[in-house]
Amino acid sequence: MILCDIGNTTFHFLIDGKHKKYFLDEKIPKFKDNIFYISVNEKATKKLIKKNPQAKNLSNIIKFDTTYKGMGIDRIVASIYQENTIVVDAGSAITVDIIENKIHKGGFILLGVHNFLKSYEKISKKLKVNFEKNINLDKIPLQTKDAILYALMKSIILPIKEVSLNKNIIFTGGDGEFLSQFFENSQYKKDLIFENMKRIIDANNCIA
Amino acid sequence: MILCDIGNTTFHFLIDGKHKKYFLDEKIPKFKDNIFYISVNEKATKKLIKKNPQAKNLSNIIKFDTTYKGMGIDRIVASIYQENTIVVDAGSAITVDIIENKIHKGGFILLGVHNFLKSYEKISKKLKVNFEKNINLDKIPLQTKDAILYALMKSIILPIKEVSLNKNIIFTGGDGEFLSQFFENSQYKKDLIFENMKRIIDANNCIA
Repeated sequence: MILCDIGNTTFHFLIDGKHKKYFLDEKIPKFKDNIFYISVNEKATKKLIKKNPQAKNLSNIIKFDTTYKGMGIDRIVASIYQENTIVVDAGSAITVDIIENKIHKGGFILLGVHNFLKSYEKISKKLKVNFEKNINLDKIPLQTKDAILYALMKSIILPIKEVSLNKNIIFTGGDGEFLSQFFENSQYKKDLIFENMKRIIDANNCIA
Repeated sequence: MILCDIGNTTFHFLIDGKHKKYFLDEKIPKFKDNIFYISVNEKATKKLIKKNPQAKNLSNIIKFDTTYKGMGIDRIVASIYQENTIVVDAGSAITVDIIENKIHKGGFILLGVHNFLKSYEKISKKLKVNFEKNINLDKIPLQTKDAILYALMKSIILPIKEVSLNKNIIFTGGDGEFLSQFFENSQYKKDLIFENMKRIIDANNCIA
């Protein structure tokens, strides 16, 4: 069984427990195994199916109760089975979902770290800086580079802090591990989406 | 006397007390009057001087004491003469400067509202939304449009709130009036930079 999470930037496969990513414009292989996928990108979905007609869309069998309109299937899969948690999927965008007593209360969408930084250099060449993971957030910045990285990190961290309070936060996604270190009440689950996809498949007795 | 504040997006003139903006790629007039300018954009500065060789760079006579390296002259002019204030200049970027007991303690640079929003649509067409000033920040969003506008506003407001605490905040710049409404301890000074430019000119007995 192969799992695939199609996002806005990559095809993310789990093949025999191993991760394999392809950018959306890259060639993807033809697989013999069963493929279960979720996707937020129609064009990329068509590309997967053309090469792999056996691929099955998991979203058809997922039941998730929310009053949120237009919630991406990746957010749904990350949020499903949670009880009292903030779920943060930190990719090209950073989705934040609030689950209380097993009920999805809504959420919001921050800019992802990389896209955030790219926006600065579009304003002015003087605002082009490289990302650094070692950022001092306890000191008011005294140069442009720090002024941007400080603002970027605060812009991401503070809105999540405001809604999390004493709740547990689960981070996933490419920048999830990095961001989780700024939150005491947090854990990083690299494979949250794939794990939940498996659980959905098991719960539905899909032939896999 | 004509004043001119050259930013990353426009030439901003004050002519006989009236505001006149030109985008950086627009033609600018040849003036007969004295012009005092500040600029964060070298290319645009050359354009002004070519047409108006009489234009004088105010930055040559400004004395501002800070340990911040590479502080833009617009931020310096906005921050000069302040005693205990947070100065927020909300344009294509949003600069935030902290002044305590007449001393500039540093600052940071947030994305401007418009550039912030544009970054979302670059991630995915599904994240393209139009700006709305009427945003409910007390309710967790239940649809994509609100999820983006909520996150955008929180990303700007919370970092400013964190450093302002009980301090007074002065807002200026194109989005200054809009943003100031989210802060109790705030005032909006549309002409902060031009007013301070005049004060600098007066203090230095420049022939104007």
